[in-house]
Amino acid sequence: MITVLCGGVGAARFLRALRGLPDPGPVTGVVNTGDDTVLHGLSISPDIDTITYTLAGAIDPERGWGLVDETWTAMASLARYAAVRPEGSTAAPTWFNLGDRDLATHFYRTARLAEGGSLTEVTAEIARAWDLPERLVPMSDDRVATMVDLLDGRTVTFQEYFVQLRHSVPVRGVRFEGSAAATLQPAAAAAISDASVVVVAPSNPIVSIGPMRTLSGMDELLAARRSSVVAVSPIVGGAALKGPADRMMLELGHEASVVGVARLYRDIAGTLVVDPVDAHLVGDVEAAGMRCVVQPSIMSDPVVGAALARAVLDAAG
Amino acid sequence: MITVLCGGVGAARFLRALRGLPDPGPVTGVVNTGDDTVLHGLSISPDIDTITYTLAGAIDPERGWGLVDETWTAMASLARYAAVRPEGSTAAPTWFNLGDRDLATHFYRTARLAEGGSLTEVTAEIARAWDLPERLVPMSDDRVATMVDLLDGRTVTFQEYFVQLRHSVPVRGVRFEGSAAATLQPAAAAAISDASVVVVAPSNPIVSIGPMRTLSGMDELLAARRSSVVAVSPIVGGAALKGPADRMMLELGHEASVVGVARLYRDIAGTLVVDPVDAHLVGDVEAAGMRCVVQPSIMSDPVVGAALARAVLDAAG
Repeated sequence: MITVLCGGVGAARFLRALRGLPDPGPVTGVVNTGDDTVLHGLSISPDIDTITYTLAGAIDPERGWGLVDETWTAMASLARYAAVRPEGSTAAPTWFNLGDRDLATHFYRTARLAEGGSLTEVTAEIARAWDLPERLVPMSDDRVATMVDLLDGRTVTFQEYFVQLRHSVPVRGVRFEGSAAATLQPAAAAAISDASVVVVAPSNPIVSIGPMRTLSGMDELLAARRSSVVAVSPIVGGAALKGPADRMMLELGHEASVVGVARLYRDIAGTLVVDPVDAHLVGDVEAAGMRCVVQPSIMSDPVVGAALARAVLDAAG
Repeated sequence: MITVLCGGVGAARFLRALRGLPDPGPVTGVVNTGDDTVLHGLSISPDIDTITYTLAGAIDPERGWGLVDETWTAMASLARYAAVRPEGSTAAPTWFNLGDRDLATHFYRTARLAEGGSLTEVTAEIARAWDLPERLVPMSDDRVATMVDLLDGRTVTFQEYFVQLRHSVPVRGVRFEGSAAATLQPAAAAAISDASVVVVAPSNPIVSIGPMRTLSGMDELLAARRSSVVAVSPIVGGAALKGPADRMMLELGHEASVVGVARLYRDIAGTLVVDPVDAHLVGDVEAAGMRCVVQPSIMSDPVVGAALARAVLDAAG
């Protein structure tokens, strides 16, 4: 049994890569919900949806999020209302694109949560609707909201930072509202305890893996089985493969390199997998306190992905 | 100033007909909200939307509801989730069609209500977004839910009765949940008091005009100015022009005729306008306690509509 700690795109691709192995066994993704938001009254879980759609083979391959063959009629129709909303209102936001097909997912999630279903239950139902063999578990059923403190003094939600501001503004801090009161989903805790291997996916260490690490008990669970926890570096050659992880690490005082990643993960993971482009940093990663395995980690095709998945499992012993 | 008490399609057409007059002056529609519902977490006001879209020239002329040139991608995508919802869940309802363009209206309403806007404010904003010269005011900002008691013992919401069951099941009662605690919107009350003419549109007397009449003070306001309140019969030749008004009247013990309509309205309106097909019933309408004016009332084209509007205003003296 393999458990993968997941953000969005990188994690989705790693989970998909596991399918390239002859018999990976049961796979559970424990997914970040700090990015979750409510727009138009709809409950939106971007990381869960990106993973679900990717594993369903339904993701838009160009954008990396949302559904392929998507239409944007509802969004286009919002502009009329954005033009009349009163001062101070944020209704009819047009900066967060929701495709017409994708809307059905948010409709279902919103209605089921309103009926009293937990996010864990609803996530499993949505995964079943897409016939996924993998199990997806949100890190918590409680609301944890990643808030970004900008250098200019403003505080914005993660989606405002990531989508509306195109993560192009300097950050001075990141907080996870609600995490002190939130409970690590017991199914997630069990999946971490019971797995033969735990993988920290190549996701943003601060805003994808970070939120789940603030949940009480999470780091302790990982530390207790640290030798069979393997992290895949999301930083390759000093840059994030996707998103703002590199700049964010720098802005928050970390080194934007595999060494910086190792310093963030050394207490919870025994091994860091780095791309050959970072092979010269193996010694520094080990000096930072992690074993280091070199393996092509840019999952550009299924062969590379399967080899990466194999190397990760092998690294766990 | 003209104030029209409104349900959906018939009222929308009458409001549009008023535009055929040379100078109708300011027009206010006081609109039924007993049909309002929440689906997918979205606040839906079917009568307000039907009127808004009709006056905007954007209604689908075939269906009589929703937007013209509509697409149904989000709805079609719901089926996947309807198939996995657990026993007892009503999430992913596929019986209530919401077009992709139309969704933007519900998104805006839902978000504005969540921000603390009143339904009256949001309705005015939506009307402005469509450049309507008419003013639309919901009968109340408080929740009033039309509930239908079926002969088979079940109780369903109005939309379940009207759309899901296609109003093809016998009814033994209609109730308006929340109406005792609901306040007649003050702007609606003022529009009724201050108008030179109040028109009861050709809408269902029981489930369109009925809900507003259960609001405290409404009937008294109308009765106090009864001589300049003119109702247009929604029953023509013993049948409803649209919807279940005729069967519902019969099932609830009323006569499905202009005479039955007169008996329902005689306390609040001085005059009933009936179609020439019902000219033989003028005496019976007057015996029931209302003046009766005969005028073609099937608004099949703008000329008929404008003549009806003229006759209604003339009837108020």
